[in-house]
Amino acid sequence: MTLKLHCFGESGHSYKAALALSMQRLDWEPVFIDFFSGETRGEEYRRDVNEMGEAPVLVDGDIHLTQSAVIQQYLSEKTGNLGGETPEESREILRWQFWDNHKLSSQAGMLRFLMNFLPEKKRPAEVIDFTRNRLKGAYQVLDAHLEPRDWIVGTGVTNADLTCCGYLYYPEPFGFDRTDWPHIDAWLTRLSEQPGWASPYDLMPRAFPPAQ
Amino acid sequence: MTLKLHCFGESGHSYKAALALSMQRLDWEPVFIDFFSGETRGEEYRRDVNEMGEAPVLVDGDIHLTQSAVIQQYLSEKTGNLGGETPEESREILRWQFWDNHKLSSQAGMLRFLMNFLPEKKRPAEVIDFTRNRLKGAYQVLDAHLEPRDWIVGTGVTNADLTCCGYLYYPEPFGFDRTDWPHIDAWLTRLSEQPGWASPYDLMPRAFPPAQ
Repeated sequence: MTLKLHCFGESGHSYKAALALSMQRLDWEPVFIDFFSGETRGEEYRRDVNEMGEAPVLVDGDIHLTQSAVIQQYLSEKTGNLGGETPEESREILRWQFWDNHKLSSQAGMLRFLMNFLPEKKRPAEVIDFTRNRLKGAYQVLDAHLEPRDWIVGTGVTNADLTCCGYLYYPEPFGFDRTDWPHIDAWLTRLSEQPGWASPYDLMPRAFPPAQ
Repeated sequence: MTLKLHCFGESGHSYKAALALSMQRLDWEPVFIDFFSGETRGEEYRRDVNEMGEAPVLVDGDIHLTQSAVIQQYLSEKTGNLGGETPEESREILRWQFWDNHKLSSQAGMLRFLMNFLPEKKRPAEVIDFTRNRLKGAYQVLDAHLEPRDWIVGTGVTNADLTCCGYLYYPEPFGFDRTDWPHIDAWLTRLSEQPGWASPYDLMPRAFPPAQ
């Protein structure tokens, strides 16, 4: 049965799940969520799809799953891939997924939204500066971790990589410049050369037309 | 062997791990981290204790674990408690742990820091307002979820409860008032009546003296 991922192209959290589906060559299709028109914040969506009011949501028959890391783990249990080779590796993957949700993607996602998808007059300058500075600490941690290694955990791609890259391939500006972080840069290139990789807007339908 | 939790009383993320240790009646002791003097951000700490520069860290012999949810899961594997009765429950617990790390504790922890532990002149008013408003959305999700149930997942206390309550028992103001959220309020009371529960400053050494 075809897996369905409720998602939208602009969502880096959706991208983490879409990339896991794509790189594991699973039979899936995206279902577009009209986030920017408020679909995820409506009562119906909260009642029938996700009480947390968020994307993505994976539907596998009767099973509805949300939170990208939970979806990734579920898919890894199906395929036996990307979830680590040992209990230690699995814990280490989970550790980076939590770190990412707390310090990297949560902040980057919000900042990119404020800087690109909010009307210009509504953009809160102090919040943008504060978050941009705070994110530098996260980039530093990831760049230092990747300096002596090819992948975040172990010797190959895992869900840790597919989580932490969630927002880092997007073209819209949010204060992240790959050339500032050489080890992150090399890792993003490495990951993009793996079978099944595709960029966010090639995997999922987007709400906005590409910038000119 | 006594488990050691590197932590400090003001840290709600540390509290999540301390509460899991306490409520499972494990043999443990806190090791004070001098966070406010910069200990977690120093080179030595990053090299020897945690490259992410964060608290808490659980030390169990040779095993060092960070990220409170990873610590909680590790302890549950030891004891067979708090981790859910079925794979579905375990996934649901993980889902709420991720939601908390993304939308609740990460924001509440930062806001409480800005409003209480930064020198008054350095407090960024716009960031404080923005984050306080954003957090209301998280309280709404949790309050609505708890309206028809006693515990976040299943029929008893799980790590989902011990995660989401991380910052909600602290006395310092950060825009969270239990009386505004009756179902959260009742749940916090219920949880505090469970065996092994204790408040953050009773479980861990604190950096600052109590407010007068």
